Amino acid sequence: MADLVNRKMVLVKRPQGMPDASCWKLVEAEEVPDPSPFHVLVEVLYLSIDPAMRAWLDEDCHVPPVAIGETMRALGVGRVLSSEDPALKPGDHVSGPLGVQQFTQLPGILLRKIDEELAPASAHVGVLGLTGGITAYFAILDKGAVQPGETVVVSAAAGCVGSIAGQIAKIKGAHVIGIAGGAHKVRHVIDELGFDDCIDYKSEDVHASLGDKAPDGVDVYFDNVGGDMLDAVLDHIREKARVVICGAISQYNNTDGVQGPSLYLRLAERDATMLGFAVTYFHERFEEAQQQLAEWLKEGKLKAPEHVEHGVENLHATMSKLFDGSHIGKLLLHP
Amino acid sequence: MADLVNRKMVLVKRPQGMPDASCWKLVEAEEVPDPSPFHVLVEVLYLSIDPAMRAWLDEDCHVPPVAIGETMRALGVGRVLSSEDPALKPGDHVSGPLGVQQFTQLPGILLRKIDEELAPASAHVGVLGLTGGITAYFAILDKGAVQPGETVVVSAAAGCVGSIAGQIAKIKGAHVIGIAGGAHKVRHVIDELGFDDCIDYKSEDVHASLGDKAPDGVDVYFDNVGGDMLDAVLDHIREKARVVICGAISQYNNTDGVQGPSLYLRLAERDATMLGFAVTYFHERFEEAQQQLAEWLKEGKLKAPEHVEHGVENLHATMSKLFDGSHIGKLLLHP
Repeated sequence: MADLVNRKMVLVKRPQGMPDASCWKLVEAEEVPDPSPFHVLVEVLYLSIDPAMRAWLDEDCHVPPVAIGETMRALGVGRVLSSEDPALKPGDHVSGPLGVQQFTQLPGILLRKIDEELAPASAHVGVLGLTGGITAYFAILDKGAVQPGETVVVSAAAGCVGSIAGQIAKIKGAHVIGIAGGAHKVRHVIDELGFDDCIDYKSEDVHASLGDKAPDGVDVYFDNVGGDMLDAVLDHIREKARVVICGAISQYNNTDGVQGPSLYLRLAERDATMLGFAVTYFHERFEEAQQQLAEWLKEGKLKAPEHVEHGVENLHATMSKLFDGSHIGKLLLHP
Repeated sequence: MADLVNRKMVLVKRPQGMPDASCWKLVEAEEVPDPSPFHVLVEVLYLSIDPAMRAWLDEDCHVPPVAIGETMRALGVGRVLSSEDPALKPGDHVSGPLGVQQFTQLPGILLRKIDEELAPASAHVGVLGLTGGITAYFAILDKGAVQPGETVVVSAAAGCVGSIAGQIAKIKGAHVIGIAGGAHKVRHVIDELGFDDCIDYKSEDVHASLGDKAPDGVDVYFDNVGGDMLDAVLDHIREKARVVICGAISQYNNTDGVQGPSLYLRLAERDATMLGFAVTYFHERFEEAQQQLAEWLKEGKLKAPEHVEHGVENLHATMSKLFDGSHIGKLLLHP
């Protein structure tokens, strides 16, 4: 398209362990062509910065990894500038695999038109997004099958998914205990998000604190962290507990393999279940989740803070926040 | 009782790692008293030698451990010699926590009368026993929910529980692959027990062989082994697989803790579930399982070989077979 130039981040090197900034290269001044047939030109508004992005960097990723020389993969929301797909028109807002760049051209079929009456554009990759509220919704309601009065523990409780997961469990009448890092996050989780309690894993012994805060044990654990924290909670599960495994942020940069849960035999001792969860398996019900989440949002039952960073060149610094935990809520990059 | 003297094995020391013979002491020439009110005097016929016995030796066992100075705990079957419990009479056969000894006196309420029309006495701690066929029955049918045409993998396939688990999966119409140690056991599992296939973990790379023998992946894995074998199978699970965790014989003597499954995130990637299983949670349905197992046994659909050792003083040597895998079928000790 005349006058538009793109700025984007291209993968140039696979990381060993924690990625550093040299894994990507900034490409500037790339001309933006008019869309091909059935393609759409999109201005990228917000990119969702997710743990999955770390997995996509490894050759042995369980989905096809980002190739060397390819624009870094990211989900995001954007605005249609011009369209050769009859289903989309300029001005429409869409979500999809937009990549870490300012503009992109994609087949319309890869994009999903978003309903701005439900919530603002950024919310569609956060509280209404796949890797945000939709993940939390199915993890808590379907996999965890949280019941009123049960004790639910949520790790990464100040992050987007954890914060919404805990709030949904509260809506369902559970007693909800978060785990987060630092006094500031703990206060946020209790005072702003309304969790019943929260453990500061940076200053407390999670195992001991769980014993104090959940003396009768844990019915549902929603885990995005793995590692020692998973073992600490496994030691406190009740009979018939459900441990929902959504991710393992503590393990993604381990070069010597993932640390498996050494207390997994608690499952057998306590008739408990560990449920693997990936939101993609619920694709037929995304609409249902979005409608319900938007309704809770409008009713004020859900709070969904966002943390926005700016500029594609800050991709590495922004992704680092996933691992150092220095943000609250949904992590977004405005390219 | 006049003339009867008991021989028994008493725990004198807790093991560090693999138990050795010095953990127990033989006590001989103990006089056997007449039963107290509501107690029953039992002659022990067969003791079930189970992995749980190893766990009972540790101070931090999830059930009360065997105390130092106490007769070694074991489930078994025996014959009532005299009874002060109106529910039992001399000549009745019973099962219960008889302990590693020739005679015992127990409250009648701890004993369960066994039906010798169903199967011979020894079968009641094997194919019809809690730690044998009843475990296999609920693990495969309830926890694993095996369906016709599914691919089922069973570890410790030449052992009592594994051998019955695999045969039940065959009865249900599954394609069943065992894992066992040594060419002799592999032949037994295929030729005698009727499994479709069997991997020799001593001479084959389990991960590679599973790729060959289950190219479309594994729907149900029944695990009594843990460790590297669990990881090898996790890498081959299909979408919506069920991994039934019954035990971890490879880990019980580890002094530096249990090796957790480092590939547990395959559960999330493949919408799969790890189900903890302990037979005690099914206590209300033991009768159902016994009736069905006895019926299959009579119809010749189930084979249940036994390996019998003799003499309480051979407790340590017999228990060692659990870990070195040098037996086929149900491991029994005739005291």
